[in-house]
Amino acid sequence: MYRIGFGIDFHQLAEGRDLVIGGTTIPHHKGSLGHSDADVLLHAICDAMLGALALGDIGMHFPNNDPAYKGIDSKILLKKCYELVQAKGYSVVNVDSTVCLEAPKIMKYAPAMREIISTLLQVTIDDISIKATTTETMGFAGREEGLVAYASVLLTKTGTPAA
Amino acid sequence: MYRIGFGIDFHQLAEGRDLVIGGTTIPHHKGSLGHSDADVLLHAICDAMLGALALGDIGMHFPNNDPAYKGIDSKILLKKCYELVQAKGYSVVNVDSTVCLEAPKIMKYAPAMREIISTLLQVTIDDISIKATTTETMGFAGREEGLVAYASVLLTKTGTPAA
Amino acid sequence: MYRIGFGIDFHQLAEGRDLVIGGTTIPHHKGSLGHSDADVLLHAICDAMLGALALGDIGMHFPNNDPAYKGIDSKILLKKCYELVQAKGYSVVNVDSTVCLEAPKIMKYAPAMREIISTLLQVTIDDISIKATTTETMGFAGREEGLVAYASVLLTKTGTPAA
Repeated sequence: MYRIGFGIDFHQLAEGRDLVIGGTTIPHHKGSLGHSDADVLLHAICDAMLGALALGDIGMHFPNNDPAYKGIDSKILLKKCYELVQAKGYSVVNVDSTVCLEAPKIMKYAPAMREIISTLLQVTIDDISIKATTTETMGFAGREEGLVAYASVLLTKTGTPAA
Repeated sequence: MYRIGFGIDFHQLAEGRDLVIGGTTIPHHKGSLGHSDADVLLHAICDAMLGALALGDIGMHFPNNDPAYKGIDSKILLKKCYELVQAKGYSVVNVDSTVCLEAPKIMKYAPAMREIISTLLQVTIDDISIKATTTETMGFAGREEGLVAYASVLLTKTGTPAA
Repeated sequence: MYRIGFGIDFHQLAEGRDLVIGGTTIPHHKGSLGHSDADVLLHAICDAMLGALALGDIGMHFPNNDPAYKGIDSKILLKKCYELVQAKGYSVVNVDSTVCLEAPKIMKYAPAMREIISTLLQVTIDDISIKATTTETMGFAGREEGLVAYASVLLTKTGTPAA
């Protein structure tokens, strides 16, 4: 028994912030603005997993005005979302994701990101896909005001829900 | 035997219109502009279901210059799309959706929306997911000029196509 | 055993270029700008297939600074991506796609596009869906500066990976 989920996340880019994508800090003159570490990719994957099981969204689970999540490492959020998936008796089949940003080039960091995500989601690195594209200088991503991530997730029922 | 579909829909926001999302009217000073009730979420789900079975798109089935659809309740359109799914011998496994808009907050209306959609698609409320996100004030959604909805649908073959 | 993939692609529109979408040249006063023929729809489908099997992205496989791909017909790229899918022992269940552009109307060309894509991916025309939407004049697509395509792909394991 399969379920699909789809998540999308947006963050502004600003000077003086770290650019954290897929649990990995990428050298750049701007970083993602947000209440947490603003990891656009992990947030999109969180939302896709929550969505596949109709468990609400990342804003419900981790409100961006809750001091508990101020500056938090989004790997912790992804782990919490995966625990909710497990509690429902599901596991991850595969994740496919795309990060839209004009700069910098991020694909050389993709293997490191995939390693981090696959470990957290208890799958192999070949079950986690990260792609990147520019928006050809168009729109807010093209003007480097912000970045967007999309994630598709396929889950399968592997156990019985936790009591 | 599974099939996937993905739909996306856009509407402008304008004064003097109702804001109808997921079959639910939400109090707000602006509403969605369109030929029908301009329910961005139901339209995205319609398109995802049509797309999963390669049945064309919502614009083909319900042209926005056809008087028959002037001001129509999009729940009627969703029901018609679901009948096309059933006629092909398929049923809905789950729907995951995201509404992108800067304001107002809509998640408190999500349970009502999910109830409406799940009844129309003959699944349980746990098979219908609605998520919401802002675009962090970026782009046309961020400027409150409009809103966007994304829907992913998983279908499964449960019967024989209608003759 | 199923896998899902999701691809998104962007191209600017410019005078003096052909508008190639889904392997089909569409009469219009502007066309897609890019290193290859800039077929936004085939690129999105390529990326969805690569993503489903975590094989990287279209930019990795066909760099846009490689003279080998200058002006190339994207049908060749789609065929290459499908060969990678086959080599992993997978086949295509269905593809659902959406092209976002303000003008021209493209749905009358959808049957021709679906025929081309289904032949390349060795499925029936009913397994390939193409939908179209405007962005209601909003954003860069709404201003006719560019266009966007989204593709969702469902794959299934049908054989053993190539040695």
